[in-house]
Amino acid sequence: MFVIMVYDVEEERVNKVLKTARKYLTWIQNSVLEGEIRRASFERLKSEVGKIINKERDSVVFYKFRTKLYTEREILGVRKGDVERIL
Amino acid sequence: MFVIMVYDVEEERVNKVLKTARKYLTWIQNSVLEGEIRRASFERLKSEVGKIINKERDSVVFYKFRTKLYTEREILGVRKGDVERIL
Repeated sequence: MFVIMVYDVEEERVNKVLKTARKYLTWIQNSVLEGEIRRASFERLKSEVGKIINKERDSVVFYKFRTKLYTEREILGVRKGDVERIL
Repeated sequence: MFVIMVYDVEEERVNKVLKTARKYLTWIQNSVLEGEIRRASFERLKSEVGKIINKERDSVVFYKFRTKLYTEREILGVRKGDVERIL
Protein backbone atom coordinates (compact mmCIF):
# COMPACT_ATOMS: atom_id res chain seq x y z
CA MET A 1 0.00 0.00 0.00
CA PHE A 2 0.95 3.65 -0.27
CA VAL A 3 1.29 5.73 2.89
CA ILE A 4 1.71 9.44 3.60
CA MET A 5 2.93 10.12 7.13
CA VAL A 6 2.80 13.55 8.74
CA TYR A 7 4.10 14.10 12.26
CA ASP A 8 3.77 16.91 14.75
CA VAL A 9 6.13 15.96 17.51
CA GLU A 10 7.93 17.98 20.16
CA GLU A 11 11.48 19.08 19.37
CA GLU A 12 13.22 16.53 21.58
CA ARG A 13 11.58 13.60 19.76
CA VAL A 14 11.70 14.91 16.20
CA ASN A 15 15.00 13.31 15.24
CA LYS A 16 14.08 9.91 16.60
CA VAL A 17 10.73 9.91 14.80
CA LEU A 18 12.29 11.05 11.52
CA LYS A 19 15.08 8.48 11.76
CA THR A 20 12.60 5.68 12.39
CA ALA A 21 10.21 6.80 9.66
CA ARG A 22 13.04 7.02 7.12
CA LYS A 23 13.74 3.32 7.57
CA TYR A 24 10.37 2.70 5.92
CA LEU A 25 9.40 5.79 3.93
CA THR A 26 10.88 8.56 1.81
CA TRP A 27 11.28 12.01 3.29
CA ILE A 28 9.35 14.62 1.29
CA GLN A 29 9.32 17.76 3.37
CA ASN A 30 9.61 18.96 6.94
CA SER A 31 7.60 16.35 8.90
CA VAL A 32 6.17 14.58 5.82
CA LEU A 33 7.20 11.20 4.45
CA GLU A 34 5.59 8.88 1.95
CA GLY A 35 6.11 5.59 0.22
CA GLU A 36 5.02 2.14 -0.80
CA ILE A 37 5.08 -0.10 2.22
CA ARG A 38 3.93 -3.62 3.01
CA ARG A 39 1.31 -4.05 5.67
CA ALA A 40 3.72 -5.86 8.02
CA SER A 41 6.27 -3.06 7.71
CA PHE A 42 3.58 -0.47 8.28
CA GLU A 43 2.59 -2.20 11.50
CA ARG A 44 6.26 -2.19 12.56
CA LEU A 45 6.59 1.49 11.70
CA LYS A 46 3.52 2.34 13.79
CA SER A 47 4.75 0.25 16.68
CA GLU A 48 8.22 1.85 16.62
CA VAL A 49 6.87 5.38 16.30
CA GLY A 50 4.30 4.65 18.99
CA LYS A 51 7.12 3.82 21.42
CA ILE A 52 8.97 7.08 20.68
CA ILE A 53 6.19 9.64 20.84
CA ASN A 54 4.47 11.03 23.88
CA LYS A 55 0.87 10.13 23.13
CA GLU A 56 -0.44 12.97 25.27
CA ARG A 57 1.52 15.63 23.38
CA ASP A 58 2.58 14.41 19.96
CA SER A 59 0.48 13.58 16.92
CA VAL A 60 1.22 11.42 13.89
CA VAL A 61 -1.23 11.06 11.01
CA PHE A 62 -1.00 8.25 8.46
CA TYR A 63 -2.99 8.48 5.22
CA LYS A 64 -3.27 5.03 3.69
CA PHE A 65 -4.05 4.12 0.09
CA ARG A 66 -4.47 0.77 -1.49
CA THR A 67 -2.42 1.98 -4.42
CA LYS A 68 -0.60 5.09 -5.53
CA LEU A 69 -2.62 5.23 -8.76
CA TYR A 70 -5.24 7.48 -7.27
CA THR A 71 -2.89 10.15 -6.03
CA GLU A 72 -1.33 13.09 -7.74
CA ARG A 73 1.05 15.54 -6.16
CA GLU A 74 1.62 19.21 -6.90
CA ILE A 75 4.32 21.32 -5.34
CA LEU A 76 4.46 25.09 -4.95
CA GLY A 77 7.85 26.60 -4.18
CA VAL A 78 10.93 24.60 -3.29
CA ARG A 79 11.15 20.87 -3.88
CA LYS A 80 12.70 19.45 -0.75
CA GLY A 81 13.46 15.90 0.29
CA ASP A 82 13.74 13.17 -2.25
CA VAL A 83 10.70 14.22 -4.27
CA GLU A 84 12.51 14.46 -7.59
CA ARG A 85 13.81 10.96 -7.29
CA ILE A 86 10.42 9.35 -6.79
CA LEU A 87 8.14 11.47 -8.99
CA MET B 1 -11.87 16.34 -5.37
CA PHE B 2 -10.13 15.61 -2.08
CA VAL B 3 -6.91 17.44 -1.23
CA ILE B 4 -4.29 17.08 1.49
CA MET B 5 -2.07 20.15 1.81
CA VAL B 6 1.19 20.15 3.73
CA TYR B 7 3.26 23.30 4.03
CA ASP B 8 6.80 23.99 5.15
CA VAL B 9 6.97 27.75 5.26
CA GLU B 10 9.21 30.17 7.14
CA GLU B 11 7.88 31.49 10.44
CA GLU B 12 6.95 34.96 9.18
CA ARG B 13 4.63 33.53 6.51
CA VAL B 14 3.08 30.65 8.48
CA ASN B 15 0.05 32.56 9.75
CA LYS B 16 -0.82 33.98 6.37
CA VAL B 17 -0.55 30.59 4.66
CA LEU B 18 -2.62 28.90 7.37
CA LYS B 19 -5.28 31.61 7.29
CA THR B 20 -5.60 31.35 3.52
CA ALA B 21 -5.63 27.56 3.49
CA ARG B 22 -8.35 27.46 6.16
CA LYS B 23 -10.67 29.36 3.88
CA TYR B 24 -10.72 26.25 1.68
CA LEU B 25 -9.65 23.27 3.79
CA THR B 26 -9.89 21.84 7.30
CA TRP B 27 -6.92 22.10 9.61
CA ILE B 28 -5.75 18.66 10.76
CA GLN B 29 -2.41 19.15 12.40
CA ASN B 30 0.55 21.50 12.50
CA SER B 31 1.02 22.44 8.81
CA VAL B 32 -1.49 19.89 7.45
CA LEU B 33 -4.95 20.60 6.08
CA GLU B 34 -7.36 18.52 4.06
CA GLY B 35 -10.78 18.62 2.52
CA GLU B 36 -13.17 18.27 -0.36
CA ILE B 37 -12.63 21.14 -2.75
CA ARG B 38 -13.86 22.05 -6.21
CA ARG B 39 -11.29 22.43 -8.92
CA ALA B 40 -11.94 26.16 -9.28
CA SER B 41 -11.46 26.70 -5.55
CA PHE B 42 -8.31 24.61 -5.61
CA GLU B 43 -6.89 26.82 -8.35
CA ARG B 44 -7.75 29.89 -6.25
CA LEU B 45 -6.13 28.35 -3.18
CA LYS B 46 -2.94 27.65 -5.13
CA SER B 47 -2.89 31.12 -6.59
CA GLU B 48 -3.40 32.79 -3.20
CA VAL B 49 -0.80 30.62 -1.47
CA GLY B 50 1.56 31.16 -4.40
CA LYS B 51 1.43 34.89 -3.78
CA ILE B 52 2.21 34.54 -0.08
CA ILE B 53 5.11 32.12 -0.09
CA ASN B 54 8.70 32.76 -1.03
CA LYS B 55 9.17 30.25 -3.81
CA GLU B 56 12.92 30.06 -3.21
CA ARG B 57 12.55 29.15 0.45
CA ASP B 58 9.09 27.74 1.19
CA SER B 59 7.49 24.52 0.05
CA VAL B 60 3.85 23.48 -0.19
CA VAL B 61 2.78 20.00 -1.25
CA PHE B 62 -0.74 19.18 -2.43
CA TYR B 63 -1.85 15.56 -2.68
CA LYS B 64 -4.89 15.33 -4.91
CA PHE B 65 -7.49 12.57 -5.09
CA ARG B 66 -10.47 12.22 -7.31
CA THR B 67 -12.46 11.02 -4.33
CA LYS B 68 -11.97 10.42 -0.66
CA LEU B 69 -13.12 6.83 -0.99
CA TYR B 70 -9.63 5.55 -1.49
CA THR B 71 -8.14 7.08 1.61
CA GLU B 72 -8.05 5.94 5.16
CA ARG B 73 -6.50 7.82 8.04
CA GLU B 74 -4.87 6.55 11.21
CA ILE B 75 -3.68 8.72 14.04
CA LEU B 76 -1.12 7.94 16.72
CA GLY B 77 -1.10 10.15 19.78
CA VAL B 78 -3.09 13.33 20.10
CA ARG B 79 -5.94 14.19 17.75
CA LYS B 80 -5.46 17.84 16.91
CA GLY B 81 -7.33 20.14 14.58
CA ASP B 82 -10.83 19.35 13.49
CA VAL B 83 -10.21 15.67 12.84
CA GLU B 84 -12.99 14.38 15.04
CA ARG B 85 -15.53 16.48 13.26
CA ILE B 86 -14.75 15.17 9.80
CA LEU B 87 -13.88 11.52 10.48
